[in-house]
Amino acid sequence: MKFHKILIANRGEIAVRIIRACRELGISTVAVFSEADRDSLHVKLADEAYCIGPTLSKDSYLNFTSIMSVATITECDAIHPGYGFLAENADFAEICESCNITFIGPSADAISKMGDKAVAKLTMKSADVPVIPGSDGLIDNLDEAVEIARAIGYPVIIKATAGGGGKGIRIAENEESLISQITTAQQEAQKAFGNAGVYLEKYLTGMKHVEIQIMADKHGNAVHLFERDCSVQRRRQKLVEEAPCPVLSPELRERMGAAAVRAALAVEYSGAGTLEFLLGQDGQFYFMEMNTRIQVEHPVTEMITNVDIIKEMINVAEGNPLSFRQEDLKINGWSIECRINAEDSERNFMPSAGHIPFYLPPGGAGVRVDSAVYPGYTISPHYDSMIAKLIVWGATREEAIARMKRALSEFAIEGIRTTIPFHMKLLSHPKFIQGDFDIKFLEEHDINGSGAAIGE
Amino acid sequence: MKFHKILIANRGEIAVRIIRACRELGISTVAVFSEADRDSLHVKLADEAYCIGPTLSKDSYLNFTSIMSVATITECDAIHPGYGFLAENADFAEICESCNITFIGPSADAISKMGDKAVAKLTMKSADVPVIPGSDGLIDNLDEAVEIARAIGYPVIIKATAGGGGKGIRIAENEESLISQITTAQQEAQKAFGNAGVYLEKYLTGMKHVEIQIMADKHGNAVHLFERDCSVQRRRQKLVEEAPCPVLSPELRERMGAAAVRAALAVEYSGAGTLEFLLGQDGQFYFMEMNTRIQVEHPVTEMITNVDIIKEMINVAEGNPLSFRQEDLKINGWSIECRINAEDSERNFMPSAGHIPFYLPPGGAGVRVDSAVYPGYTISPHYDSMIAKLIVWGATREEAIARMKRALSEFAIEGIRTTIPFHMKLLSHPKFIQGDFDIKFLEEHDINGSGAAIGE
Repeated sequence: MKFHKILIANRGEIAVRIIRACRELGISTVAVFSEADRDSLHVKLADEAYCIGPTLSKDSYLNFTSIMSVATITECDAIHPGYGFLAENADFAEICESCNITFIGPSADAISKMGDKAVAKLTMKSADVPVIPGSDGLIDNLDEAVEIARAIGYPVIIKATAGGGGKGIRIAENEESLISQITTAQQEAQKAFGNAGVYLEKYLTGMKHVEIQIMADKHGNAVHLFERDCSVQRRRQKLVEEAPCPVLSPELRERMGAAAVRAALAVEYSGAGTLEFLLGQDGQFYFMEMNTRIQVEHPVTEMITNVDIIKEMINVAEGNPLSFRQEDLKINGWSIECRINAEDSERNFMPSAGHIPFYLPPGGAGVRVDSAVYPGYTISPHYDSMIAKLIVWGATREEAIARMKRALSEFAIEGIRTTIPFHMKLLSHPKFIQGDFDIKFLEEHDINGSGAAIGE
Repeated sequence: MKFHKILIANRGEIAVRIIRACRELGISTVAVFSEADRDSLHVKLADEAYCIGPTLSKDSYLNFTSIMSVATITECDAIHPGYGFLAENADFAEICESCNITFIGPSADAISKMGDKAVAKLTMKSADVPVIPGSDGLIDNLDEAVEIARAIGYPVIIKATAGGGGKGIRIAENEESLISQITTAQQEAQKAFGNAGVYLEKYLTGMKHVEIQIMADKHGNAVHLFERDCSVQRRRQKLVEEAPCPVLSPELRERMGAAAVRAALAVEYSGAGTLEFLLGQDGQFYFMEMNTRIQVEHPVTEMITNVDIIKEMINVAEGNPLSFRQEDLKINGWSIECRINAEDSERNFMPSAGHIPFYLPPGGAGVRVDSAVYPGYTISPHYDSMIAKLIVWGATREEAIARMKRALSEFAIEGIRTTIPFHMKLLSHPKFIQGDFDIKFLEEHDINGSGAAIGE
């Protein structure tokens, strides 16, 4: 099956990214937009564009009915959900299927299996993918908790199963404090979420966020496209990603890649997906979660493998086998991505939406910009603050860092504040330059107020 | 020796290109500009910038004294001449040397040897580089001409040694017409150039313009970086370049590359250079000339080799050996460059300078833009009409073409006319898609009035 027309159920840079891939493949595109996005670049670049509702995402970009109506009326063969919005919504994937429109992504079943964290962890465990040691599910009684904590070793972390935003999390350093901490956590959880259920995990420190990009087809083939290091995070939001990871040995890369492929095969995955792991300084890695969609940071993988991941997603969604085998893939050079957000990184990353009277992205050798901004565009405060991805390639990590600083220094965005000053400082930080950073890096090193912000 | 500061004796996109490379290498930059270029991007991006004279190039960008004064006062270690202006001026290279400022390019001697066409041809012949068969120098008498023409075979072309712009050129199909054509050519040459000297060459048809990029250091090492096909020309001006060449076999690539390396070694070349050849359908190739400088189209070679040619020029100018050997170089994928000129390709390529109120270059995967344009910039009518180079990379030629069309379609330049419509048509032409084109292609196929324009 060859797609003739694809609806892009998204906005911003990822909608533009997908429209570009479709245009290169000779596939027509249908953009959808909220009332706030009438002047957006994805609307201008698509072959057709339709308003699907008011500004609020729930009324537009999450509006199943509107989107399916447009797809049906315009006779689309497929829908690409991008990331966010409906990208990991199993119900939406199912509705697409029932309407005979291909959802460009894995099956609803695979999405569900990976969407439920407890199910995902069990599935991974049975696929021999290392998971963070802890209780298999909720803690039934304190004796059991003591036993598990002894088995996995202290410190342990107690997490509310219904938790979020850091609430209901307690750390126990030893057996003495374990029982009181569990009790406190249960009380907090009951109060905050109306659900006292907590579970135990080993408390891991000094970890890197290392994720493996995988691609699978509907014929049982799965490969990995190596790793990305996404440890530079502020409040669990990635700010900088790179590929490869500066501390991974070829042997560890091989093992993590193989684990990711096992994970994909275990849920009969198809399309692009990412296995997120925590990686310790001892080389042990643990499954965190799987993102069953394209990720923001996919370009760094494209830069070092020369694979166009969006085109390959479309290829496998059409029912074709993967266009490459594992042995065809090689790492070539180094790539870094900086997320340019409409946030004032000099003032605690305060949102900074607004009009951009002047805009000039950097150019030249080894520079890629994925953005939906143009001169005169107005950033809406209603959506994601990420307004551009600046991606560079270098023959070495050193060249990639130098090139990124060069590109950041010439990126002109007037009228709003951005995270460019933060990136300039980060890229000059000795620890970043050495590759010596873990997920607590921005908490522990005050770069442009990033640490202070997290401590709030 | 490590350069600390480099003066860029140029303007426009190539000045920006060199400034970017220097910034990535941690080398300070000094821009120079004419009075007309006060608001130019190279002036804004350089660390320092100085006006070197009035608008006319002869008073500014060709003004030795001004440029050398700035270089000396600002304590520059080296000067990068870019292309055009002083790039192939042996006197200027010599003055740099005498001022103890490194000229980033070959020696004055190598520039001279290749600058004189007759000397260059003899040098190449003795280096076993194939040259176009013909008279070695001027024709002394008609008997000799008849003998040479018999030896090389008809048709032959008679060219005025002082010629230019197509004047004083005659083609003889057979011996009967040879004598009369020589006489006519001599008379024309005398009248037009005050010099009746003419020489004979075999008249070659169906030729491609295929050039080999070479890099050499000051330690006797020389390598080639494969070829570029620059056959798409209008009035001898290249409009589209690609690498590799669609018709070259690995064996022929090897032979042409080896010839180019022999040529470089023969003149003790150092730096980046290009051997331009005519390539026949029979696989025979003939030396045309050597450009002893960086070329406009160098990015397509960078895209398929991952070598940063400007950085490598600086590296060898510093006296370091080449940072790679021949066997380190591999062709990876395909790259095409379109020259975006401030010319109305729908109206006979009429110049179209002026104000650009809106400008948005294309972005995304596999797209590189080298340009000095920004929103609000005014294109001056006084200099080169090329205002941007759009370069794409694709895994295959087919993908590169599709990507170029996608990128051209989203390139927004308002206020002036450009050659974008020409490129869109060319890239859809069946002969271009098949790779079936020679240097007469635009004369013989009317693309956007290109053929008619040449016939004027």
